Amino acid sequence: MQTHAAIDPAHLIDTSGELLDLVRSTTPLVHCITNAVVTNFTANALLAIGAAPAMVDLVGEAGPFATVASGLLVNLGTPQPEQRAAAREAVAAARQAGTPWVLDPVAIGALPIRTELAHDLAELRPAAIRGNASEILALAGVGAGGRGVDAADETDAAAGPAAALARRTGAVVAVSGPVDLLTDGTTTVRLANGDALLTRVTGGGCALGAVVAAFLGAARGTATGALEAVVAAHLAYTVAAERAADGAAGPGSFAVRFLDALAAVEASELRALARVSTGALLGAAA
Amino acid sequence: MQTHAAIDPAHLIDTSGELLDLVRSTTPLVHCITNAVVTNFTANALLAIGAAPAMVDLVGEAGPFATVASGLLVNLGTPQPEQRAAAREAVAAARQAGTPWVLDPVAIGALPIRTELAHDLAELRPAAIRGNASEILALAGVGAGGRGVDAADETDAAAGPAAALARRTGAVVAVSGPVDLLTDGTTTVRLANGDALLTRVTGGGCALGAVVAAFLGAARGTATGALEAVVAAHLAYTVAAERAADGAAGPGSFAVRFLDALAAVEASELRALARVSTGALLGAAA
Amino acid sequence: MQTHAAIDPAHLIDTSGELLDLVRSTTPLVHCITNAVVTNFTANALLAIGAAPAMVDLVGEAGPFATVASGLLVNLGTPQPEQRAAAREAVAAARQAGTPWVLDPVAIGALPIRTELAHDLAELRPAAIRGNASEILALAGVGAGGRGVDAADETDAAAGPAAALARRTGAVVAVSGPVDLLTDGTTTVRLANGDALLTRVTGGGCALGAVVAAFLGAARGTATGALEAVVAAHLAYTVAAERAADGAAGPGSFAVRFLDALAAVEASELRALARVSTGALLGAAA
Repeated sequence: MQTHAAIDPAHLIDTSGELLDLVRSTTPLVHCITNAVVTNFTANALLAIGAAPAMVDLVGEAGPFATVASGLLVNLGTPQPEQRAAAREAVAAARQAGTPWVLDPVAIGALPIRTELAHDLAELRPAAIRGNASEILALAGVGAGGRGVDAADETDAAAGPAAALARRTGAVVAVSGPVDLLTDGTTTVRLANGDALLTRVTGGGCALGAVVAAFLGAARGTATGALEAVVAAHLAYTVAAERAADGAAGPGSFAVRFLDALAAVEASELRALARVSTGALLGAAA
Repeated sequence: MQTHAAIDPAHLIDTSGELLDLVRSTTPLVHCITNAVVTNFTANALLAIGAAPAMVDLVGEAGPFATVASGLLVNLGTPQPEQRAAAREAVAAARQAGTPWVLDPVAIGALPIRTELAHDLAELRPAAIRGNASEILALAGVGAGGRGVDAADETDAAAGPAAALARRTGAVVAVSGPVDLLTDGTTTVRLANGDALLTRVTGGGCALGAVVAAFLGAARGTATGALEAVVAAHLAYTVAAERAADGAAGPGSFAVRFLDALAAVEASELRALARVSTGALLGAAA
Repeated sequence: MQTHAAIDPAHLIDTSGELLDLVRSTTPLVHCITNAVVTNFTANALLAIGAAPAMVDLVGEAGPFATVASGLLVNLGTPQPEQRAAAREAVAAARQAGTPWVLDPVAIGALPIRTELAHDLAELRPAAIRGNASEILALAGVGAGGRGVDAADETDAAAGPAAALARRTGAVVAVSGPVDLLTDGTTTVRLANGDALLTRVTGGGCALGAVVAAFLGAARGTATGALEAVVAAHLAYTVAAERAADGAAGPGSFAVRFLDALAAVEASELRALARVSTGALLGAAA
C-alpha cells in the first residue's frame, strides 16, 4: 500500500508519464466485456493509446482469456444474459490469476438486473470502479441512481461515499465529472483536465474504463500502485481530450481528433497541462 | 388532433424550429432498442442533436425504462431473441405510460422473424413508423419487401399504402427516400431536403428513427401534434445532412461532419433551407 | 480452374480494376455475420466500396438470406450462441445456393468455442479464408494461435500451411500482414500494399473479409476465378489505405479518410500503385 506521503501531485504526474510510456512499450492486452454501443470506440481508444483490445464475452472463453489478459474491463451497459454469465466467469478467473479488473456500473440504480450484478461483482475485488456520481452513489448504497448514463448527482457529493466504497471493496474508485475524483479510501485526488465534448460522444466514459484497465495492466508487477495507475489513465485520457477539443467543430470531429490525440499524447504534455490536486479524505484540495 | 387547415408548410417549418430548440432545452431521454450495426452512430446522433440516448434491451429492464423515458425507438435490424422479448416488454410499458414510441421495421418483407414481429408491434399504437418504401409497403401488406435495408420501391408508390397504414395504426408514417413522404393518413407532407450521402453511411435511416423519438418526446405534453414532431425531426436531420455534405470528401468525412452539423443546426437554417410541401391525401403537392 | 500461367501480376492487377468497377456497377448484397466490435465499420466499408451490407444473424433468417445474398461473411470475433447457430444455418444455405462465403477465424487457437466452430466451418467449402498468420496457422493445425486479434506469427511462416489449408478446403487462403500472402494452394500471391495504420483501427482486418465477400459476389457467374477476386479485394482495400494514410494525423482521422478512399479508389490507381508478385508454391516472389 502507498502511504499518503508519496501521493503528491508532482509524483502522480511523473508516474503518469512513465506509465503512459510503459503502456506503449508493453502493449497490455485488455480483455473487454462491454456494452454494444461502445465496443468499437473502446477498441479504437485502446489501440490509439497503445494497448491491444480483445472483446471476449462468451461463457467458456471469458474465463481462460481473463487469465492471460493484462487487464479486464467489465462494463454493464448492455448486459445480455450470456454476457452476464461471461462476466462472472471472467471476474472469477481474473481474481484467481491476479489480473487487475475494472468495474463500470453503467446506469445502475433503478435498473434491476445490472444493479444486482454490479453489487455482486463489486465484492469480488475489482482493482478499480469507474462511473459517474450517480452510479457510484448507487453502488455505495446512497442515492437513487441516474437516468441512463447521465450524471444526475454532482461529483463532490460522491466524495465521502466513494471513499467508503473504496475502503469496503479495496478498489480505487473513480468518479467522472467536470472534475474527476479518484480515491483509494485514504487519499483523494482531483483532476480538472478534460473537456465537455467528452460527454457529447457516446463511450466517452466507457472507453476510459478500458484505458484504466490498460494502465493497471501495464503497472502490474511494477512498484506503481493502483491509485497512481488510475490517475495516469485519467490524466492521459483527459489531456488528450483537451488537445482534441482545440479546433474541433463539434462532437463528430472531436471524436476523430480524440483518437488521434490518444495516439499522440506524450508524457511532456501531461506535465505541462495536468491540473491535479490531492488531499486526505475530506480534506481541502492541495 | 390537428385539423388539416393548420398543416401548411410555413406552420410546419416554424414548429420544427421551436421543437429543435425544445429538444435542446429539455434533453429528452430516448430509450433505444436498436440494431447492433448502428447503436453507436444512433447514440452519437442523439447526443449531437441534444437528446440523451440509452440503450436498454434486457427483459426485466426494458419495461421499467420505457416508463420513465421521454420516447422509445424499436428498430428491428438485428432482433436477437432477448431483444425481441425486451421490445415487446418496452412497447407494452410505453403504451401504458403514454411514452411515444417509434417503430422502424428494418428489412421486413422476406425475413420471417422480424416481419412477424413488426406486424405485431404495429398494432400496439406506435406514434410513428419510419422506413424506406419497401419496408412501409411490406408493413402495409403491399409489396414483397426490399433486399436488406435497400429501398427497392419508390417513395411515391408508397403514398397510398402509407396513408392507409397510418389510418389503421394511428401512427404517423414516414417513408424515407430522395423525397421523404410523411403522413398521418389525412395530410401528406413531402420533404425534399437531405443528401444522397446519408444512404452511404450505415444507420443514416436508423438514427433518424431515434431522432423522431426524441422530437416526439420533446413534444409530449405540448400542443404540438405527432405529425409536426415527425416533420421537425426529419427537417432538422436532413438540413444537417445538407450542411454536412457541403465540403465532405466522401462517406467517412460526411458522417463526421453530419454529427457536427446535428449539434450546430439552428431554427434559422430550417427556415432558410426547408423544402416542404403539403397536400391532402392523393392531392398534388402544394 | 485457373491455370498457373494465367496468374501473373499484370493479369491480377488488370482483373482487380475490372472487378472494382463491377462491384460498383452491380452493388453485391453482402450478408455479414460478424462480431459486435466491427459491425458498423464493416457496413460502412462495404457501402463505401459500392456494395450493400446486411447483417442477418438470426436463426430462421440467416439461411434464407444467405440464399439470396451475393456473398456471405462469417467472422468469429464474438460468436454468441444464437450467432453460432445462425452461422451454421447460413453456411449450409450458402453452400446449397452457390453463394460464395468467406470465413474469418478471429482469435482462434486458444479460445475453445470459436476454434471448434472454425474447424467445423472450414470443411464446408468456404470460397476464401482470411486471417492473420496466427489464425491461419491455428486453422491449418500448426501453431498455438495468437493473443486476441494480434498476429504473433510472421506471414511468411504461414506460407506452407496456408497452401496446405487451401488445398484441403478448396478455399483461397489470405494471410494478412505487412505483406499479404494469398494462395489457392498452387499459386502464391504476395501483395505489399497497405499501411500500418490499418492495424491501429479496429476492424481493419475484419472489414477486409467483408470486402472479399463483396468481390467474390461480384465475380460470381463471370470468368474470373476466386483467387483473382480475393486479390482484387485486397488490392483495392490496401491501395485505399495508402491513400488514406497520406495526410492522416493518427488512427482516428485515418479511419475517416479510409472510408472516403474506399469510395474514391479507381482502377487506374490500382494499376499505378500495385505491388504484387506471384510465384508457384515455395517459389521466390517474381
